Amino acid sequence: MPRYQAPLREMKFLLYDVLEIGTYSNLPRFSEAPQDVIDAILDGGSRFASEVLQPINAIGDRQGCKRNPDGSVTTPKGFKEAYKQMSDDGWMAISADSEYGGQGLPRIVALAFAEMCSSANMAFSMYPGLTRGAYEAIHHGGSDEQKKTYLPNMASGKWSGTMNLTEPQCGTDLGLIRTKAVPQPDGSYKITGQKIWISGGEQDLAENIIQLVLARIEGGPEGIKGISLFVVPKFMVNKDGSLGARNSFQCGGLEEKMGIHGNATCVMNYDGATGYLVGEAHKGMRTMFVMMNEARLGVGMQGLAQAEVAYQNAANFARERAQGRSITGSKAPDKPADPIIVHPDVRRMLMDCKAFIEGSRAFAYWTALQGDLLHVSPDQLVREKADDRMALLTPVIKGFLTDRGFKAASDALQLHGGTGYTREQGVEQFVRDARIAMIYEGTNGIQALDLVGRKLAANGGRAVFGFFSDLEEFVSANEGNEKLKPYVAGVQLATGQLREGTMWLMQNGMSNFDNAGASSHDYLQLFGLTALSLMWAKMAKAALEKEGRSKDGPGDRFYADKLITARYFFDRVLPDATSHLAKVKTGAGPVMALSADAF
Amino acid sequence: MPRYQAPLREMKFLLYDVLEIGTYSNLPRFSEAPQDVIDAILDGGSRFASEVLQPINAIGDRQGCKRNPDGSVTTPKGFKEAYKQMSDDGWMAISADSEYGGQGLPRIVALAFAEMCSSANMAFSMYPGLTRGAYEAIHHGGSDEQKKTYLPNMASGKWSGTMNLTEPQCGTDLGLIRTKAVPQPDGSYKITGQKIWISGGEQDLAENIIQLVLARIEGGPEGIKGISLFVVPKFMVNKDGSLGARNSFQCGGLEEKMGIHGNATCVMNYDGATGYLVGEAHKGMRTMFVMMNEARLGVGMQGLAQAEVAYQNAANFARERAQGRSITGSKAPDKPADPIIVHPDVRRMLMDCKAFIEGSRAFAYWTALQGDLLHVSPDQLVREKADDRMALLTPVIKGFLTDRGFKAASDALQLHGGTGYTREQGVEQFVRDARIAMIYEGTNGIQALDLVGRKLAANGGRAVFGFFSDLEEFVSANEGNEKLKPYVAGVQLATGQLREGTMWLMQNGMSNFDNAGASSHDYLQLFGLTALSLMWAKMAKAALEKEGRSKDGPGDRFYADKLITARYFFDRVLPDATSHLAKVKTGAGPVMALSADAF
Repeated sequence: MPRYQAPLREMKFLLYDVLEIGTYSNLPRFSEAPQDVIDAILDGGSRFASEVLQPINAIGDRQGCKRNPDGSVTTPKGFKEAYKQMSDDGWMAISADSEYGGQGLPRIVALAFAEMCSSANMAFSMYPGLTRGAYEAIHHGGSDEQKKTYLPNMASGKWSGTMNLTEPQCGTDLGLIRTKAVPQPDGSYKITGQKIWISGGEQDLAENIIQLVLARIEGGPEGIKGISLFVVPKFMVNKDGSLGARNSFQCGGLEEKMGIHGNATCVMNYDGATGYLVGEAHKGMRTMFVMMNEARLGVGMQGLAQAEVAYQNAANFARERAQGRSITGSKAPDKPADPIIVHPDVRRMLMDCKAFIEGSRAFAYWTALQGDLLHVSPDQLVREKADDRMALLTPVIKGFLTDRGFKAASDALQLHGGTGYTREQGVEQFVRDARIAMIYEGTNGIQALDLVGRKLAANGGRAVFGFFSDLEEFVSANEGNEKLKPYVAGVQLATGQLREGTMWLMQNGMSNFDNAGASSHDYLQLFGLTALSLMWAKMAKAALEKEGRSKDGPGDRFYADKLITARYFFDRVLPDATSHLAKVKTGAGPVMALSADAF
Repeated sequence: MPRYQAPLREMKFLLYDVLEIGTYSNLPRFSEAPQDVIDAILDGGSRFASEVLQPINAIGDRQGCKRNPDGSVTTPKGFKEAYKQMSDDGWMAISADSEYGGQGLPRIVALAFAEMCSSANMAFSMYPGLTRGAYEAIHHGGSDEQKKTYLPNMASGKWSGTMNLTEPQCGTDLGLIRTKAVPQPDGSYKITGQKIWISGGEQDLAENIIQLVLARIEGGPEGIKGISLFVVPKFMVNKDGSLGARNSFQCGGLEEKMGIHGNATCVMNYDGATGYLVGEAHKGMRTMFVMMNEARLGVGMQGLAQAEVAYQNAANFARERAQGRSITGSKAPDKPADPIIVHPDVRRMLMDCKAFIEGSRAFAYWTALQGDLLHVSPDQLVREKADDRMALLTPVIKGFLTDRGFKAASDALQLHGGTGYTREQGVEQFVRDARIAMIYEGTNGIQALDLVGRKLAANGGRAVFGFFSDLEEFVSANEGNEKLKPYVAGVQLATGQLREGTMWLMQNGMSNFDNAGASSHDYLQLFGLTALSLMWAKMAKAALEKEGRSKDGPGDRFYADKLITARYFFDRVLPDATSHLAKVKTGAGPVMALSADAF
């Protein structure tokens, strides 16, 4: 059976040494989060993930969810108890606002905890994850009354939340939505239609389920400009906050899937259900995007989190499994065979995973920190920069971390040989679970299109030029540092390639939009690799500063090892950028030349 | 539900126009295979694959195999009938020798049929596939009496065959085998031990199961040099060919796996079972390698075959599913949305699949042709060249086709969006099934080590220098051809990169074997891409010669489309070679620097 230990030292290194979140202690939320508080949350969170969530991960995969004849859904054994404990112990409320009963801590702390939960049990952690997204949407777009009605119980997890977007005829293209909303005299709406692939649309974990539903108000504009957002509770909420009548919708079926079996993927049938408009009529997409952006960062983390747990198990296996002899002479001559970690190709897979995981974690946490600054900084310029970074980098995190996270999980399976293919070993579940992250919350193709079609051009390219400034400022601030030289050189190389790709897109993407579309996937990958080069250089810098000054003494190799992994990234991962750049620059010609019936 | 149509025109184009197998009609086997015979086999095989095997593929995945309390194994519904039909209609005997009741046709014809079966139902096709490997091993290493006893019924499929290598403590490292063989006065052996992951070790398809078992003769040398090969029939065979007593072994359990559920993966317990030595004592690995090489080419084909069927379904989905509008203006303005095949990133995934599949099919068929020439050519030099190519390229085909085949199947899933993640759609089964091909018959890491550690150095590098001659001869024979120029230039580019990587390995791999190990994976990928560049240039040449002379008239775009796909390969796939070369040249330093406990 697989194991999981939260990478606490990695997380603390990032928060304290690389991101130096202590320097923000004068800001709201951060002022509530001195190092000892964060340490306590991470340490306790780690225990919760390993001891409560991880043990029911394989069970969830095998049992899956069950829809009962009355339309109710039973989650796998142990999920209900784990959910209750998570809610009771306040784990869901880390970054929720204190006015709604949350702990009011920075989101980056909640993100670190979310990473642990996702590694320990991805299917389970989607229930609180989506609740968090729904919380944000109501927080952003809802009326004061809606906030008062729903947010406290959603903050605690007593009630859960969902997002209802997809219909059979529309996934990506939400302009095709048919679910309709008919205004009622009392200001509410009657919602009718079918939604599919609704994660947690029905379950037995929370006392109430707060559905956020996209629908078209009868007579509203066609297409995406006629879509409104509604809050549709499973049980109506009385004035005093108690639960009232059951609303008119039901789970009509569960989807059988490749993975995340512990999460209920529901067909939801709305049959004149009572809903309330969130925000303005016909402008539902705006608020839904708040929720989706939150969710996209979370989905990126899922890719990373599955890679992490798969990697941990691969590393353990590589140390334990004895097979063959080192090609440079036996390393365990007293045993029948050497542990397979002596074999260079086994190392290659482990190092690929490690360099990806640690670099991507830095990337995601750094971006999440921007999300915090966006909300709490008093400085308009800081907020603008943070907003630009968030908007620009969210699709990169979603696409890059899930593509490479799946690859890393698959490499971790590979390292196990035949054992990895068996269900008993358990690593294959991580591969199946990780696969969905490349698809939902906007396929990775949509992320790439968002990046090249929207984010690059926004505000005259302000965000992307800002990101180039981030890269260049790091280089110029550190190019005199002899010890940092190889890392700074790597950032320079990556920056040059990203600049070349960006210029190509700006020159060719406008004249023929297909050029932008055809290059978008490789451009996103190039972007991700460049972002990771900056993160690895930042980590190398922090490691060099800390090295030898570790409180764990001279025997502590953490910082020296960090530098080795950084070198690996620049030597053996970053070279992929060259291929991606070459593909970016071919344009649409070879991609679009065949007729549709030639495939 | 997924569909499958054998790519008959692609197969015929390869056999007749690219490989020109008609030019070998003066050779044995080929003389029995004029074009109308091959056409009839491919056309009939295509119907068998689509109508008999494909419909039970999803059923096999859902039902899986079941071990009964008596140790017998029940295969999924429909498998038994399909197997009987396959055997009765002679489909298993295409390339078996006529003296054992086979059709005596070239192996390349059998390979094309095997590709269809694997696309239609990979789990099913492993039963005849392994039987074929066991047939070859007995054919190669067995005594005349053993051949007479086993081969006719194995050729027809009436009896099936297996390979028993793995034990709990040894997969890759067969020197650790503990199963023992005790000589008996009558010349037979008593075999005792446990084998695991034995595909088809027990099933209800064939009347008898001929186990080939690696074991150590009591008192024999330690390690790999004391391993012998035994034939161990499930039912003893009487002198008259009738079946006798049940032998003393049993299936002790079935493995639960990520995929290929329709294939029984057995724990086999041998309890003093009667076995007969195949070939010389202690030299069992030699014969087993014959079987493994046969099987490795077949496994490479599985990677390709899963990519093909996944791609076909993705292409159909892309033409049917309407979502969004083309970014260059609607292509179906009368409909609510355009088919997604208008989107460049959807095209990218389809083109990636197509360029990989068609190039790899040419590579595998060309290599299989070498296998035929090796057996039937009267010319010693042709046989030597064929043998060199087979030995050198088998690990490349196994590693490259299964790595990229899995990636292509996963891309095909991606193209489906959320639909692809559902079991109902069925494409996710191809991804799960394809995943094993990277592992079994020697993990892809072992293939890479075989390539750099053994195949490069064999006979003073004769095979690899011969392959460079193949590349250069194509270039020099065609560089004057103006229309072929871009393709020839691509081959030259790839050749230069492979040469650089090979030189690096020769200079650095000997001084430090870890350099060879650390570079092996990327070197194999570089090798595969170079081989595909030659194949695509060969196909482009054939297409240029045929273009405009097609019997289907001027409206036939097959050859023009082939040239477009060739360009795509050189523009958008081959650039990966640059990254792989860069990684090859880093050597072991960054890969091996961490201590084992740093992971």
